[in-house]
This record gives sequence, structure tokens and C-alpha cells, in this order.
Amino acid sequence: MPDTTSAPIANIADFSFLEGVKVVDFTQFEAGPSCTESLAWLGADVVKVENPNRGDPGRRLRPGKPDDDPYYFHVFNANKKSVGVNLKSERGLALAKDLIRQADVMVENFAPGAIERLGLSYDVVKEINPGLIYAQIKGFGEGSPYEKNLSFDMIAQAAGGTFSVTGEADGPPTRPGITLGDTGTGMVMALTIASALYKRAKTGEGCHLQVAMQDAILHYMRTNFATTGRTGKPAGRAGSKIAGSHSAPKGLSACAPGGSNDYVYISTSAANPEHWNRLLKVVGREDLIGDKRYDTPQDRAANEPEVDEIVNTWTRTKTKFEAMELIGAAGIPIGPVLDTLELNNDVTFEQRGIMQVMEHSVHEPFKMPTWPVRVDGRPTRIKPSPMLGEHTDEVLRDWLDLDDDAVAELKTDSIVK
Amino acid sequence: MPDTTSAPIANIADFSFLEGVKVVDFTQFEAGPSCTESLAWLGADVVKVENPNRGDPGRRLRPGKPDDDPYYFHVFNANKKSVGVNLKSERGLALAKDLIRQADVMVENFAPGAIERLGLSYDVVKEINPGLIYAQIKGFGEGSPYEKNLSFDMIAQAAGGTFSVTGEADGPPTRPGITLGDTGTGMVMALTIASALYKRAKTGEGCHLQVAMQDAILHYMRTNFATTGRTGKPAGRAGSKIAGSHSAPKGLSACAPGGSNDYVYISTSAANPEHWNRLLKVVGREDLIGDKRYDTPQDRAANEPEVDEIVNTWTRTKTKFEAMELIGAAGIPIGPVLDTLELNNDVTFEQRGIMQVMEHSVHEPFKMPTWPVRVDGRPTRIKPSPMLGEHTDEVLRDWLDLDDDAVAELKTDSIVK
Repeated sequence: MPDTTSAPIANIADFSFLEGVKVVDFTQFEAGPSCTESLAWLGADVVKVENPNRGDPGRRLRPGKPDDDPYYFHVFNANKKSVGVNLKSERGLALAKDLIRQADVMVENFAPGAIERLGLSYDVVKEINPGLIYAQIKGFGEGSPYEKNLSFDMIAQAAGGTFSVTGEADGPPTRPGITLGDTGTGMVMALTIASALYKRAKTGEGCHLQVAMQDAILHYMRTNFATTGRTGKPAGRAGSKIAGSHSAPKGLSACAPGGSNDYVYISTSAANPEHWNRLLKVVGREDLIGDKRYDTPQDRAANEPEVDEIVNTWTRTKTKFEAMELIGAAGIPIGPVLDTLELNNDVTFEQRGIMQVMEHSVHEPFKMPTWPVRVDGRPTRIKPSPMLGEHTDEVLRDWLDLDDDAVAELKTDSIVK
Repeated sequence: MPDTTSAPIANIADFSFLEGVKVVDFTQFEAGPSCTESLAWLGADVVKVENPNRGDPGRRLRPGKPDDDPYYFHVFNANKKSVGVNLKSERGLALAKDLIRQADVMVENFAPGAIERLGLSYDVVKEINPGLIYAQIKGFGEGSPYEKNLSFDMIAQAAGGTFSVTGEADGPPTRPGITLGDTGTGMVMALTIASALYKRAKTGEGCHLQVAMQDAILHYMRTNFATTGRTGKPAGRAGSKIAGSHSAPKGLSACAPGGSNDYVYISTSAANPEHWNRLLKVVGREDLIGDKRYDTPQDRAANEPEVDEIVNTWTRTKTKFEAMELIGAAGIPIGPVLDTLELNNDVTFEQRGIMQVMEHSVHEPFKMPTWPVRVDGRPTRIKPSPMLGEHTDEVLRDWLDLDDDAVAELKTDSIVK
């Protein structure tokens, strides 16, 4: 298992930017939960309304089996509360409406048409709470030929273009291994919600926000659209190089001991000729300084295989960390290729509070990334992801003023859990 | 060239969520500009302070040559104003401080130490404007062993883990073709700024925000960290498949006419056995319904090459659009692999206002993605990216009350442009 040894931790804070903001969270899996989790990390009070039987399917609960895979749920649901409500019962639906009446923000990412079928469409809900910021995340946009289709991260990424620019030049389109269709969408929605809250504090007016995962992907593809603007052609694939770059060296160099992620990315700048000369010194090839074959970025791009071999001959004798240190110290842009276990085990992330260990009442401690932005030098605190229905009593009391007897009756009648 | 024919456009709006918010923008390239541009799209007044000679290096101005490559600049600087100020002159620096005194937000992403050397460190600036939200974007975090190192998108992605999870299982780490190290970082910072504005409206207090590109990447890598939490191993690469998935079919299928992006991504769900049966009907292999070799998701995963071939035999006879239509209509999650030219030429994006044509006083019309979130059914309006110093007169008058003579003198003395 990864190293979860505690290291001295930065001066962790509870961010209060969104203090007092109440979010009713009907989201599931990642695109929605990443959005509401970021609001929670920034100080909002986020209440996840879940199906009392299986909860958010992102919990991956296996009926009748122990809850042994909580990690996917942890990473997208830290710092939230959970209330189990049976939305398909009349009283459960009424309870959800009561929560919505008290809320500032509501977020959902059900399949197309599902929230409307539940009876919680924007038209219905704005009558209950005209000041509500009502946010919907779907796979394809309203008005798109595919608006009724289901989507998942991979589908949004394929249809949004990321596969087309990832992979080898002569190979098939390739999936970027990050879930940008989900969390990337969550971020643009969360930013829009926070901005809407700023205006609403002055006007009291609610609004209806909608984003599609396919559309959100375009936002992250803009350097590629700039290429198409310039060339009139589709942006291409180039392995780990930049398609159409007119400079070298720029790309991966293999390092010792030759493992699958033992590489550094070196990126000399075409605008700074010193990068190449400095690199030649580091790799012990000062004899090549001024050599006409490699003099300008264009020369080096034209002789890229030779240039790369000059660098690789040296990097293959160093670990990626040694290469990073020596080349970085010479002022040349470089980064090691790190995998998730290496990142997990690098205590400097924990010392800076960027990774934190979630201490959970039921599950094993789990080290995970927290909000990456620090405020006045301090990272925000990770709090445990909730067990299904963990905060039902608390939220029904605090938000709706229900007493213990009322909550007990709702539980007996299987309206809440 | 791509098709920029105008299509009937959605009912475009000028978003006003951040109306009245003044942003002084010292950013360059993409990580910073994507942050401030999103604030501009949401209604803030963003003034880019640029070097009077070459401007933001993301303009890629070529001294003495026509400004023929404006697209990269357009996509990250729409809806902003530009003021050219020589920060290395005493009067220019004083002018920048005057702008900062009037501002709500300041953002910079210079190389490590540069803003401090200019004399605009947080310690200096908070004395001028204690209510300022001061935001810094760097490559590596304060306290990281690499905090003094330069970074670019590729380096942040390598060091943040995305290369390690992208590419073929038996191949090298691969660069995801999107610039997540830049725009992904811009988004988490913009969200933090908008949230800070919400609190500041009540308290008037400023704050110091910092994010590192490497740290921001971890935020988008969380499904991979969940895998490491479960397995104790580094998350791996699997081409266009999901590493460790126990279900099939899930991945790319090749389509007619066999071009480099002629594929669809089909993602049948392990939780919904009907997906497979429906797919067999669409591809004309009803004879295989109930076949024991392919009955459960686990069976299909165990026989994945055969399963993929059953599907591919059919998809190779259809274009990706035909396959999308037929398989999607059967309720099976699917997406076509689209490239940037196809996305650019698909008029439905423009009809929905997700892509818009930037009409520019100097440059050719350019179609690009705008903010993907719609408000009350309306997209936000793209306004042209500014020419260097285009708004110097306007901003010095409106923000600082300088009259025409004062501005003319500053221009004569080469303090502003």
C-alpha cells in the first residue's frame, strides 16, 4: 500500500470564502461531485442528497458485501454531508423541496431528463425558491443533436477532441489518462456558480446554469483550436512532442534504470539560445557548442533524432531525479515523469498540505490531493467523505428545524436513511 | 481554412456576474490568461498590463514582421483590455501601483521571483491596497524542491502525473494533447478568486492566493490516485482502454473510411447488461445474445479481443457519424472521435453559441470556443482580444482620471504605449 506516514504538515486552514452558502447536491460519479466538493473546500455547506439504498453510484457499494472500494468516492466527496432521501416517495420529494427552499445553490448531473421526471425541474424549483442558483451538468448540450444521449468521461473526451490530439503520430487516437471530461467540467461550473453567488448577494436573483461535458472539453482544447485557426487543418498527434514545433530538444529523454516511467521532459526554448548551450555543458558535450548542425532551434529541429540522442546518451546514465537536479540547476526547463505512487510517496506534497491524509471513522486512512490553491500560505483542510446518511439527523434539524421524533418517524417509514 | 460561415446564433448575452470587479492582469502565455479571461467572460473588467515593446509573449509578435499568428493570443485574451506600461521605468511602476490601488484583483504568472524583482510583491502591494485579492500562478509550489524552476505546460503535466497514465500499455509515457497544466490551473485559480470576491464583498479583506501548475494537475488526476489507494500500485497506461477495467466492450472501434480519427468510443456499462444485448442487435449479431462466452461483463472482458472484433466488423462498414446515430439511438453510451477541424466546422456549436466568431478590427475573423456554461439558456459574448495598448487612453482616463494631456506626455516619454 502507498505510504501514508504522517509528515509535518503545513499550517492547514478551514477556508471560509463561501461560508454560509448552502448547496443541495444531487450529483453522482465525478463531474457533479468534483464541482460541489470544490465549493465545500472553499467553505460552502454542501449536503449530498442520496438514494437511501445504494447512495451515489460512485460509492460503488456492493449490496451485501463490505464497502471495500471507497477511494473513488473519497476523492470527490470530501468535506460534504450526506442525507439519504427516497425521492420517489411523495414525502421524500417534499423533504427535498424543503431543503431546496433553504438552499442557495442546487447542482445535479443525472442522465438527460431524469431530474425533470423526479419533479425537480428548474421551472418547478424556481417557484419554490426564486433566488436559487440551479446548476445542471450533462453530457451533450441542449440543442446538440446528441442532447438525449448518455455520456461518460471517455465519451465527452472523444467527442470534445482530446483523443484526436493524443497518441503517436502514426497511431490511433488515444485516451488522455486524466478524467478531464468530468473534473474539467466540474471546474467551469463551480467557477460560474461562485461568480453567480457574487452577483446574487447584491440582487437576490436566482439563475439557471447549464454545461455540457463535450462543450467544456473545447475550453481545454484551445491551443489546438489556435493551431487549426493558423493552419486550416486538424490539430494532430505527436507522441510526447508538440505537433508542428520548430524547436529541439523538446520532449522525453529516457533515464536510468529504464522503468516504464523513467523519463524526464526537457523543453529548451526557441527564444533562449542559451538553453541549448547550457544543456551541452551539463551532458558533457561542450565540443558541440557552436556546431553548425545544431546552431539554431530550426537546425536542431531538422536534426532532431541526432539532437535527442546527444541528450539521451547522458540521461540514460542518470535517474530522472538526478537529471532533473542537474539540468534544472542549469536553468533549463525540465520535469521528471512521475507516477501516482511516486507522487503519493513524495512527502513534500504532504508537508505543503497539497496531499493530505483523510482520517475516516470507518475506512482506512487515505492520502489524496486537496484543493491546490493556498490562501495566505495555508492549504484547506480535508475532512472525511460522509457515510451514506451520516448527516441526516443533523441536516434535517439544522436546515428544517425537524425534531428527533419527526426524523425518527421519517426513518421508520423509509423516507430517509 | 476552417469554415467561419455565420450560422444562426443563440441569444447571446453579456454575463454580468462579476460586473464592477476590476482585475489588473499581469499574466502571459496561457495559465494566467485563461484565468483572467474566464473572469472577463463572467463580467469582470480585465485590464492586461503589457510590456510596451512586445506585449504578452503569447502574442508571438515577430519584431518587424506582420502580426500573422494571433490565434493563440485570441483564444486566451478575448474580452480583455490592454494597456502598455513600461514597468522598468519609475513612472511606469508608479502607474502600475495606481492601477493596483483601484483594483479588486491582481493576477500574475511571471517566472519565480520576477514580480518581486519588479517591486510588486504581495508585501509591497498590500500596503497600497489591503483589500486586494493577489493571485500568483507558478510552475512548482512554494516549499517544493523545484520552487525556483521554470515550468511550462508539458513539464507540469509530466511532473504532475498525466504522462504516466497516457499512452499504450507497453509504450512510453505520452503527452495528453490538451494544455491542462495551463488552463486546468487557470480554472482552479479563477474559482478561488471568484469565491474570495464573495467573502470580500462582506469583509473588505484582501488575501494572497498561490497555486502551482504541478499541484493543480494532481486535482485532475484523482481517479488515478483512487486506483493507487485501492491497489497500492502506480496507475497505469492502457491506450484508449481504462486500465484495470473489468468490463467490455469499452474502447475505440474503427469506422469507415479509415482515416486517422475515424473511430467511435463505445462504453457499455457493467451495471447495465442490456447495453451488450442492444449492441448485438445493432451490429446484426442477435445470434450471440445469451452466448456463454460473452454473457457477463467479466466474460466479455476475458474475451475482449473477440468482443471488440464483433463490434469492429460492423463499425468498419459505417462512418463514425452513422455508428454514433445507430448505436446512440439504441441507448448505448457512445461518442465519435472528433478532431478540431470537424468540431470547428460543426455548425451546431455555433448555433448554440458555444463556438463564436471573433470579429476583430485588424485580424481575420476567427471561430473559437467561448465560455461553455450557459446562463438562463444564453451563452456569453466573445469580444475581440485587444491590440497591444489599445485601451491605454481609456483605462488611464476611467481608472485614474488622467486627462488627454497627461496620457500624451506619458506616451511621449515612452512610459506607456
